[in-house]
Amino acid sequence: MFQPPSLLFTQSRHLLRRSHRRRLLLLTPHLLHSSLSTLSHTLSHPIYTIWSANTGLGKTLVSAGIAASSMLSPSKLVYIKPLQTGYPLDSDSAFVYRKIPQILHRRNPQLTLLASNQILNVSIPAARFKIGDNFSEERVSTKNGFGNFGFYEERRVGEGEGEGSELICKTIFAWKEAISPHSATEREGTFVGDDDVLVLLKKCLEIGVDSNGNGEGRVLSLVETSGGVASPGSSGSLQCDLYRPFRLPSILVGDGRLGGISGTISAYESLTIRGYDVVAIVLEDHGLENELPLLSYLRNRVPVLVLPSIPKDPLDDLMEWFDESQSVFDLLKGIMLSSYKKQMDRLHEMPKKAQEIFWWPFTQHKLVPQEKVTVIDSRCGENFAVHKVKDHECITQMFDACASWWTQGPNAALQIKLAREMGYTAARFGHVMFPENVYEPALECAELLLQGVGKGWASRVYFSDNGSTAIEIALKMAFRKFLADNKVLLDLPQCNTDESSIELKVVALRGSYHGDTLGAMDAQAPSPYTGFLQQPWYTGRGVFLDPPFVSMCDGVWKIAVPKKMHYEDVILEDTSFNSRDHVFDKSRDNSNLASIYSTYISQELPLSSGSRKSSHAGALIIEPVIQGAGGMLMVDPLFQRILVKECKNRKIPVIFDEVFTGYWRLGVQSAAELLFCQPDIACYAKLMTGGMIPLATTLATNDVFESFVGDSKLDALLHGHSYSAHAVGCAAACNSIKWFKDTQTNPNVVPGQNLLRELWDTELVQKISFHPTVQRVVSLGTLFALELKVEAHDAGYASLCGTSLLLKLQEDGIYMRPLGNVIYMMCGPCTSPRVCLQMLETLYTRLDEFTQEKGRKAREISS
Amino acid sequence: MFQPPSLLFTQSRHLLRRSHRRRLLLLTPHLLHSSLSTLSHTLSHPIYTIWSANTGLGKTLVSAGIAASSMLSPSKLVYIKPLQTGYPLDSDSAFVYRKIPQILHRRNPQLTLLASNQILNVSIPAARFKIGDNFSEERVSTKNGFGNFGFYEERRVGEGEGEGSELICKTIFAWKEAISPHSATEREGTFVGDDDVLVLLKKCLEIGVDSNGNGEGRVLSLVETSGGVASPGSSGSLQCDLYRPFRLPSILVGDGRLGGISGTISAYESLTIRGYDVVAIVLEDHGLENELPLLSYLRNRVPVLVLPSIPKDPLDDLMEWFDESQSVFDLLKGIMLSSYKKQMDRLHEMPKKAQEIFWWPFTQHKLVPQEKVTVIDSRCGENFAVHKVKDHECITQMFDACASWWTQGPNAALQIKLAREMGYTAARFGHVMFPENVYEPALECAELLLQGVGKGWASRVYFSDNGSTAIEIALKMAFRKFLADNKVLLDLPQCNTDESSIELKVVALRGSYHGDTLGAMDAQAPSPYTGFLQQPWYTGRGVFLDPPFVSMCDGVWKIAVPKKMHYEDVILEDTSFNSRDHVFDKSRDNSNLASIYSTYISQELPLSSGSRKSSHAGALIIEPVIQGAGGMLMVDPLFQRILVKECKNRKIPVIFDEVFTGYWRLGVQSAAELLFCQPDIACYAKLMTGGMIPLATTLATNDVFESFVGDSKLDALLHGHSYSAHAVGCAAACNSIKWFKDTQTNPNVVPGQNLLRELWDTELVQKISFHPTVQRVVSLGTLFALELKVEAHDAGYASLCGTSLLLKLQEDGIYMRPLGNVIYMMCGPCTSPRVCLQMLETLYTRLDEFTQEKGRKAREISS
Repeated sequence: MFQPPSLLFTQSRHLLRRSHRRRLLLLTPHLLHSSLSTLSHTLSHPIYTIWSANTGLGKTLVSAGIAASSMLSPSKLVYIKPLQTGYPLDSDSAFVYRKIPQILHRRNPQLTLLASNQILNVSIPAARFKIGDNFSEERVSTKNGFGNFGFYEERRVGEGEGEGSELICKTIFAWKEAISPHSATEREGTFVGDDDVLVLLKKCLEIGVDSNGNGEGRVLSLVETSGGVASPGSSGSLQCDLYRPFRLPSILVGDGRLGGISGTISAYESLTIRGYDVVAIVLEDHGLENELPLLSYLRNRVPVLVLPSIPKDPLDDLMEWFDESQSVFDLLKGIMLSSYKKQMDRLHEMPKKAQEIFWWPFTQHKLVPQEKVTVIDSRCGENFAVHKVKDHECITQMFDACASWWTQGPNAALQIKLAREMGYTAARFGHVMFPENVYEPALECAELLLQGVGKGWASRVYFSDNGSTAIEIALKMAFRKFLADNKVLLDLPQCNTDESSIELKVVALRGSYHGDTLGAMDAQAPSPYTGFLQQPWYTGRGVFLDPPFVSMCDGVWKIAVPKKMHYEDVILEDTSFNSRDHVFDKSRDNSNLASIYSTYISQELPLSSGSRKSSHAGALIIEPVIQGAGGMLMVDPLFQRILVKECKNRKIPVIFDEVFTGYWRLGVQSAAELLFCQPDIACYAKLMTGGMIPLATTLATNDVFESFVGDSKLDALLHGHSYSAHAVGCAAACNSIKWFKDTQTNPNVVPGQNLLRELWDTELVQKISFHPTVQRVVSLGTLFALELKVEAHDAGYASLCGTSLLLKLQEDGIYMRPLGNVIYMMCGPCTSPRVCLQMLETLYTRLDEFTQEKGRKAREISS
Repeated sequence: MFQPPSLLFTQSRHLLRRSHRRRLLLLTPHLLHSSLSTLSHTLSHPIYTIWSANTGLGKTLVSAGIAASSMLSPSKLVYIKPLQTGYPLDSDSAFVYRKIPQILHRRNPQLTLLASNQILNVSIPAARFKIGDNFSEERVSTKNGFGNFGFYEERRVGEGEGEGSELICKTIFAWKEAISPHSATEREGTFVGDDDVLVLLKKCLEIGVDSNGNGEGRVLSLVETSGGVASPGSSGSLQCDLYRPFRLPSILVGDGRLGGISGTISAYESLTIRGYDVVAIVLEDHGLENELPLLSYLRNRVPVLVLPSIPKDPLDDLMEWFDESQSVFDLLKGIMLSSYKKQMDRLHEMPKKAQEIFWWPFTQHKLVPQEKVTVIDSRCGENFAVHKVKDHECITQMFDACASWWTQGPNAALQIKLAREMGYTAARFGHVMFPENVYEPALECAELLLQGVGKGWASRVYFSDNGSTAIEIALKMAFRKFLADNKVLLDLPQCNTDESSIELKVVALRGSYHGDTLGAMDAQAPSPYTGFLQQPWYTGRGVFLDPPFVSMCDGVWKIAVPKKMHYEDVILEDTSFNSRDHVFDKSRDNSNLASIYSTYISQELPLSSGSRKSSHAGALIIEPVIQGAGGMLMVDPLFQRILVKECKNRKIPVIFDEVFTGYWRLGVQSAAELLFCQPDIACYAKLMTGGMIPLATTLATNDVFESFVGDSKLDALLHGHSYSAHAVGCAAACNSIKWFKDTQTNPNVVPGQNLLRELWDTELVQKISFHPTVQRVVSLGTLFALELKVEAHDAGYASLCGTSLLLKLQEDGIYMRPLGNVIYMMCGPCTSPRVCLQMLETLYTRLDEFTQEKGRKAREISS
């Protein structure tokens, strides 16, 4: 979208003059959570957030009305106002505290009720105003400009016998001035981070937890926001963003005035575009029947309720209004309870249903009992929100250390941005067929790819849907290029080839993985994935080389040189390195290992011609630096560099499979940067779209492209998928690519260097590599992996040896999945190193327990 | 999301009492355009829409301020107010008409200006009020409650010499009451459809076109909306939906009051989630500095400008305010012009850039000159908005008759709904890894699939990314099932197979196409797609049968029975049918053709064992009814039904490739319904998500699933893609599946019958089949296709014979792409049959021209 920087600057300079300080405050990145999330909220009873389309539409009256309706029978109601400005003159929790007893007494004088109201953190000016002459700042300890001045009141009403009701009102933060919290924050010299609000809100939500675990129908918690849905909170984050980690179900108070239809619909859309569920809309009757177009627009989604006109006289005690409104609030309460019940029923049935009708990939269903199925309610940035039933039922956050199966990158702010951009793009383009057409997201995406990962070598972008298809396309490109380059060698008359006479093979490394479609499989060495029972058509059309692997063992980076390279007359230099940087150092090109590699490759590359066919190596394919699915194996970068050189010398086109390694997974945009060499063809997918949506690209040099140019359509590359370059995917890619490399949005990017700072604490990584249970460790970019020491029979993809360790880590809030006896943690390119540190510390602790347990079991068996 | 129907009903009944008529009006589906769109707007000069976050924020002042800034040098300004209520007391066009001369004269008395104001359609009450006693309804002709009462005024000001400026103000529709247009519409007895507003707006936008084609910098058009962005227009459609087909760049007037940050952001989001570009936000200063959080939130996207406080005194002539605001409006005008220039530059460079860096699939780049590249600015429902440079530059609508390469389905209303739901899902889930997990969109999608296309046979859903991967998965499933079923036959000890001894083949039909990855290719008979230069690894591992095809020729449906089935001793019954229904009639099972088919299949199915390997038919794969990429070939359904039966008898698992045929493409959810038989495995993709985003599924019976259950992970189906069951795709699928089959949202669904009404006019289809240029015709569901009669050397995929015909149709606003000498038109499941009729009529006319041209050329050559 358009931005004229110079003009913008003119205007903002004017603004800067007016409010220099605040502008700086507001431009700090919001929603960057800097520690492993421990947020959760109970499901023992319904909790609702009360939002509003604008200020002054009666949110607090709605809260009070719902409260009154739900408390006529003995029950508990928790009312929370996280951010209150204008205090003490305005206090929504005090209003609810005062009104509810009045309403309830009027409706049923027999009802007993214990009501309380507490203001937890009060700004000094607000406290001074409330306390008046007796105010003394020394009376309490203050922090960040707030103090707990013990503003607490309670009362007991009603004469009835038996069990009574309880009303608990809390204000978490209060300021004096009746302005937006972010303005009050600054003017009253306070500081409140988003995390502070969330942590205190979490505590307040726990008040409602029924110790008997049976809150349904008896307890209700309400959280009332301030102003409109997108009004800034105390830090400047919009409230709809601030509260998003909880994603509580929502009631929206709409606008019944002239123009209110628009404001209500827009507010509703701001909530939904952030992933909230709006359960009902309620608005005041202003005689305009705004509910009708709302009902029409929201058809089949959200009920719209109308409240009688609210008396404007400030002296009116509203009792008659609450009487008139009772039926509407009863209805609303019913909707809220039934929605809660529906949500709970669904959560309970989901694991069973999933087990019955899903067919999960890479999953032996027999090994997944119902209780192992994870119900994921949502995600917010790097964290899942997971349904947990242990102790009491709750939704709790877990760090997604599988980075949703190697694709996921966004933090919370980018996720919301991508959601909006994807929505925009779907609304603008839907899907648009690609061939012979051009549209903005596809063009911008191709431009960004060629300026970024393709810079200096690629000149064309081919789009497809996933890594596997990108590889199939890459192979077709490489083979054609090889055939074009080797016309003479192959003695082909005008490309009219007698297919039976030629066999093209691909040079690949053992342990590499390029996808699950047949063409991609055939480029892999035999493995558990390629057996006859998995794919009877697999033939392994490769020259498969044994690569030397590198990993950290006992604090040192070591290269394991394969047996085949141990030549009799050559003495191996030391293959240990104290730091990872040394492993990647270009000066190693002059080591004797380099010539050993070169010799080995030269021996392996020539192909023996078969009896019927002449065999040729028509392509090289490698995963640069890290072989992912093979077990997070790091290949010696020197070996790969030499291999590329040897193939280029022989006119064998070189393919880099960067589906896993690309786009910051290894701390750089392209892993080619780590190898100091460039391919002819490269494949990108996964993180390219920020891990939001499938899209893949195959980049190629102009020479490769030219080998498909001809007079006939039949010379063109006749491979395509319907959604080639689909607009929504391209838009996600454009926004992610820009976000991740921008130092303004990604604090992990080292300015001017186009790489990520070290995310995994080097010392702790080293310490882990010394651990007795640990065979080897790799950490690079967003990836940390370790191999557990196991008996040979327990190694490999089918191993279950890490299960107990991973279950423990799940309890700690880290979601992981093993690759046999290799376990890994993956973060996003923006994840704070503090979060990574906490994860490593947690892992280290659990490793100790795991070792002890293993030892105990071993002793039990031997004794 | 939650909806308690009974409760909602309670409330809406109450509402119904209050306003029965209006409710009905509002619940009619909006945004259903019932004729081929002819909408377009010029690009000869900038056109902007002025939106507002709420009513009463000064939209008209902003329009006037921009107008004044842009008219200081000689120029033309067109101001359009499509919908005006409160007329004549309120008239925004009259305000602009009055104020601009005043402001301009004050700034430069030398300036000459011709100003006019016209009110095009006035409701009777408004006209009566304005005219007063002299009113006479007979004076003018009225339509839909409006008349053109000749309300026109003009004035000339300024004494200067030389070229003057021109201000043209238009109000399109005016009502008397100062309420929302949808309410005024009803109360004043008028009717205005969305199409009426758009067509008149299109005409008004043409006023600004400079006949010299050089309007840049000299002409500006402004369209001012009413109320807030989502306020209903006259029909009840929200204005942001109503004006969407034009997708004009936008200025948003924000809210500077308390609570206004939220309203402004929400309004901005309502525009972006509909695909609008907001170029600037401008708001009145209320001393709250609302611009600061807005600037922070919108960073790097949209400039935010602040206007001085607006005088509240109604007697103030605002001249001083306009003076004070001049610098802001100058800035705003600059932003608008530079954004326009940027847009134009980009549009101009796009075809060249696309040619330089894209590598389009299935495209011989040498055959696509720059002028053949189509720049697609956006889409709205079934229509592209395309950049056109012929005559004068404009954005014009074209029907996407490629249905974006066979995937696309939504109308405008569903597109906006899907955009919102995809945004919601991205915000709620981002992407969540699938194995061993469950989350709502994936579960609901699987449930809908099994209740819908899988009903009665499927019990498991496997997710992948596109048709090709779904097919590779289907083949792996089928082969495993075959091996499990045929253990004894194959004499396999416990599935430990010696792979070299067994060769599995797939039974498939010639002309079928299943995707471009190697596994899918190997299941296809040799074709232009499978040559050695395309994929040297292609081996064609199939038993490929010759199917009998059906098509309409000269008004009759005929079956072409392949030579191989012409048995000496059997006389063929008549193979012509007067209606398509007869072709599908189940009674044909008893025809002698049925036994001929059966004989042929029984002859072909047994495989000869090779010398080294024993060959087995391990799967049957077919595209039910229509072979898409093969050339829109309809296979005799009787043949496919018998083939399925014969395979099932032999325990050969049956795969239906419904990637193209599924989800209403052929007028039913599953083409299996047309065959009256069920598969063991079926693949869905394309239209499943409404054509918005890639997602594929492979459905399977429980028996197939069971063949992968075992004790080891290695027995599981080890095939998967990172984005398996990605949430956004599943959400798009859920919403599309429900929308297309619901008679409330899809007027084409025949109630109670779960099929679409006939979309292509039967008589006209028949007429076309008689056309001398036409070889054959097929129409079924959303598909219409014809094969052009050509010499044999010009037939097939590489043929370019239809090019001139398709270029003509493009001029008529129909975007098509050939399959060699087969051309087709595809609509969405909700497309109005009227639109289809218009397309067929256009095609027929162009066919005549095409034939004449061909004849002329032939004569030229022969003479």
